[in-house]
Amino acid sequence: MLVEVRLRPGIADPAGATVEAALPALGFTDVGEVRMGKAIRLAVEAPDEDAARRRVEQLCQRLLANPVIEEAQVWVSPGEDL
Amino acid sequence: MLVEVRLRPGIADPAGATVEAALPALGFTDVGEVRMGKAIRLAVEAPDEDAARRRVEQLCQRLLANPVIEEAQVWVSPGEDL
Repeated sequence: MLVEVRLRPGIADPAGATVEAALPALGFTDVGEVRMGKAIRLAVEAPDEDAARRRVEQLCQRLLANPVIEEAQVWVSPGEDL
Repeated sequence: MLVEVRLRPGIADPAGATVEAALPALGFTDVGEVRMGKAIRLAVEAPDEDAARRRVEQLCQRLLANPVIEEAQVWVSPGEDL
């Protein structure tokens, strides 16, 4: 499963701003709005996808994300192992 | 668009190992194989999804990922703005 942890809108993102500032010099004037987050891959033992998703959402609240400044989203690709 | 930058298999991941070591004490014995990567959100001006995807793959090679230790994957959700 993939967990995306994003900074909430309005929270300053210096890493993203640094990437964005480097883009014009590399010729990527067509790219913008860069925001850096975390992509966490993990495996869960669960009977089905819904149970695995709920379990990982608990884990996000406890450990993976700081809910004051971050929001987390759980992605499961079709056919992917949990 | 979402770019996931993962460490290649076999590359040491101290951040992921630290999260994994914390899981049993929090009661998450059913979660494992934790790998930490980057989740980069960005916007691209492009005529269609294929063009945007190609452009972001170029950007990954130039700036977002270190191809020696990392691999990048571009995700576009259905209906998502580019």
